Amino acid sequence: VIGLALKAWKFLQKAWDLGVDDPRKVIHCLKVGTALAVVSLFYYMRPLYEGFGKNAVMWAIMTVVVVFENCVGATVCKSLNRVCGTLLAGFFALGVHSVASQSGQRFEPIIVGASVFLLASAATFSRFIPSVKARFDYGAMIFILTFSLVSVSGYRVDKLFEMAHHRISTIIIGTSLCIIISMLICPIWAGQELYTLTTRNMDKLTTSLDGCVEEYFKDSGSVVESNKKCHKKLQGYKCVLISKAAEESMANFARWEPGHGPFNFRHPWQQYLKIGSSMRSCAYCLEALNGCINSENQAPEYIKRHLNNSSLKVSSNSSSVIKELAITIKTMKKSSNIHSLVGEMNSAVQELQNDLKSLPKLFSPPSMPEADTPENKKIESISRTMVKMPLMEIVPLLTLASLLIEIATRISGIVDAVEELENLAEFKHASNDKC
Amino acid sequence: VIGLALKAWKFLQKAWDLGVDDPRKVIHCLKVGTALAVVSLFYYMRPLYEGFGKNAVMWAIMTVVVVFENCVGATVCKSLNRVCGTLLAGFFALGVHSVASQSGQRFEPIIVGASVFLLASAATFSRFIPSVKARFDYGAMIFILTFSLVSVSGYRVDKLFEMAHHRISTIIIGTSLCIIISMLICPIWAGQELYTLTTRNMDKLTTSLDGCVEEYFKDSGSVVESNKKCHKKLQGYKCVLISKAAEESMANFARWEPGHGPFNFRHPWQQYLKIGSSMRSCAYCLEALNGCINSENQAPEYIKRHLNNSSLKVSSNSSSVIKELAITIKTMKKSSNIHSLVGEMNSAVQELQNDLKSLPKLFSPPSMPEADTPENKKIESISRTMVKMPLMEIVPLLTLASLLIEIATRISGIVDAVEELENLAEFKHASNDKC
Repeated sequence: VIGLALKAWKFLQKAWDLGVDDPRKVIHCLKVGTALAVVSLFYYMRPLYEGFGKNAVMWAIMTVVVVFENCVGATVCKSLNRVCGTLLAGFFALGVHSVASQSGQRFEPIIVGASVFLLASAATFSRFIPSVKARFDYGAMIFILTFSLVSVSGYRVDKLFEMAHHRISTIIIGTSLCIIISMLICPIWAGQELYTLTTRNMDKLTTSLDGCVEEYFKDSGSVVESNKKCHKKLQGYKCVLISKAAEESMANFARWEPGHGPFNFRHPWQQYLKIGSSMRSCAYCLEALNGCINSENQAPEYIKRHLNNSSLKVSSNSSSVIKELAITIKTMKKSSNIHSLVGEMNSAVQELQNDLKSLPKLFSPPSMPEADTPENKKIESISRTMVKMPLMEIVPLLTLASLLIEIATRISGIVDAVEELENLAEFKHASNDKC
Repeated sequence: VIGLALKAWKFLQKAWDLGVDDPRKVIHCLKVGTALAVVSLFYYMRPLYEGFGKNAVMWAIMTVVVVFENCVGATVCKSLNRVCGTLLAGFFALGVHSVASQSGQRFEPIIVGASVFLLASAATFSRFIPSVKARFDYGAMIFILTFSLVSVSGYRVDKLFEMAHHRISTIIIGTSLCIIISMLICPIWAGQELYTLTTRNMDKLTTSLDGCVEEYFKDSGSVVESNKKCHKKLQGYKCVLISKAAEESMANFARWEPGHGPFNFRHPWQQYLKIGSSMRSCAYCLEALNGCINSENQAPEYIKRHLNNSSLKVSSNSSSVIKELAITIKTMKKSSNIHSLVGEMNSAVQELQNDLKSLPKLFSPPSMPEADTPENKKIESISRTMVKMPLMEIVPLLTLASLLIEIATRISGIVDAVEELENLAEFKHASNDKC
């Protein structure tokens, strides 16, 4: 029993943390509660109740429970799907009903059964088609539901039109209540969330990139204490790796939302998915890079030092490009100096490549000045074979360098995607005040 | 108009392709149609109809539409959630109703409204808790729905118990029909799907790994014609990268399924997620490796040849380890030679490392045999500076090698995860017949 109580306590604690962590979730719950309480109280107002019939009020409650979602886009999407699906199915069902009722009592069940079978199968199949699934999945379900209900109950209930009228009007009452409450009380916009996610992921990417490279070139003897916190920061890129599904659903919902904040109705949300996927391709490289940082073979300090500056320069220039992109998206203004930043990044890459090219010189004698005495040469050539390049040890370093170069290439992909967004969303040029 | 017709035609064609591609989807649609037609015909059987009341039959139809899912696990999960949610909410609602009806007509709406508000908020919040969301999301929704409906309608309808009884029994009829049809007619088991997905992803991983490395070491002058088909094969690892969400939902549903085929009821499905994530960490490296294959800097042929054999050996040994793991999972028998395969892989890695170590020798003269005449030496040392290691060109090659080594390390992670699965699921030892 104590174990159970402890478990329950832990569960409650976790729930509490969740609420403290994101108070908007708590607000959403209160919003759902309010909407339901309001709809329930409809029932107690006799005039309304008598106008619609008790079954009809039930539909309003059901609508609120099923349609109310966390973000505005999802609520609007489900509401429209519900209304359209119900209307469409209602028309179909009335048609089938009129045909069936004219064909005599014996064929009626057969016609109704066959039409339910056919239309339900077809609508279920349409839910597998990706473009339908993304937007009208719920509508197709409601279509099946309403069609079956109406065509079946049409056999018994003769007041079909009246019933349909009541049902549609209660559904409309329910959906409009949901849409109004979700838009007016602390609205959570899917578009805004997608936008925040994108810029936050960019920040995480830069932190990880900078952090990883710095970590690698840090003196191995330095502090280990702040390691844990630091480690968590380095792992930020993992959020980029796993946010594909979240981005897709948000982009799907965002297109149903009316203009809000800085976004107008036809904001190119799909472009954020492209930006996300190009960020992910960077993050894959970062994951591999993280692997070679933790490798056992470590290059000797003096070789590290040779590439230290240029590597750090590549990483810091790369991350300033990403930071600039994040600022572009945050302010929704075309950046005036993104091209010069990309140029700097490319020249840093060039520098790193030059440093790589000159790396073998570290292991060969300065340049063989005036080979004079044979003895001298002999010693020299012996020492040369001694200082033979420790290739095995520097492989992780070279891998790091080449991954950095690859990351810089992929960052150009992000730049292209963001520039496309700039054009599609018609970002303004940044005013030159801040220069 | 013609444009619209063309669009519709294209849409139909796409739908047709989808059906041909996976006939099980078509079968699922027919199953849904059958279930609905059967439930609808209940309505025409007067004895049943009169026993339950027309509203009650509606609940059976609704249940079928809402609960019937593509795979058995999802259907069972939703069915149980629906039944339990309804029962629990019914009890709560009866309690609230009895309290409310004793407190006088004036307070009744207030008590009902407040309780709806509180419980709906709490249940909505519970849907945010990850462990609840994974298993009881639908149940929580049904709880809110039923509680609101019952506590509100309780005010008017006095035959509450009878209504509850009818509703529960129609819901049970609907859910059992769904479960029976989804289990008996061409069942699609989420567990089986997860298992197939895992082994298929392993195959794709090996194909990509082998393909990438072969592609790199192939003579650049060879055939380009079969490039496109080959390219598609190489991209197989991308499926591994994006299958996280699918794996998670399948593992969630699989735990609701009864034993089927070779899997018993408590098969450790969660372990497949671990295997999946360790495969993904391999795929990240493969993605980075793919980047360096397409790099512009290519190592000269003679250096490539030096690492050719050992790299190919590492990749083929790595992929035979993965293949063996796939066979282990496919046959559900402990592999007898996985350890020797891992050993071979590790020794191949060792060999590759040795080859890397000996790489600098390619650029230094054989071993300075009997340095005799000064003139000779002079020529030699000049030629040595000429054949200076082209580090920039071999960086992609070295990166490839180090990524291969990293991949081999990560494959050990897959081996560990699969071994844990072997223990958890109590795989038998493979019989020695095939030796």
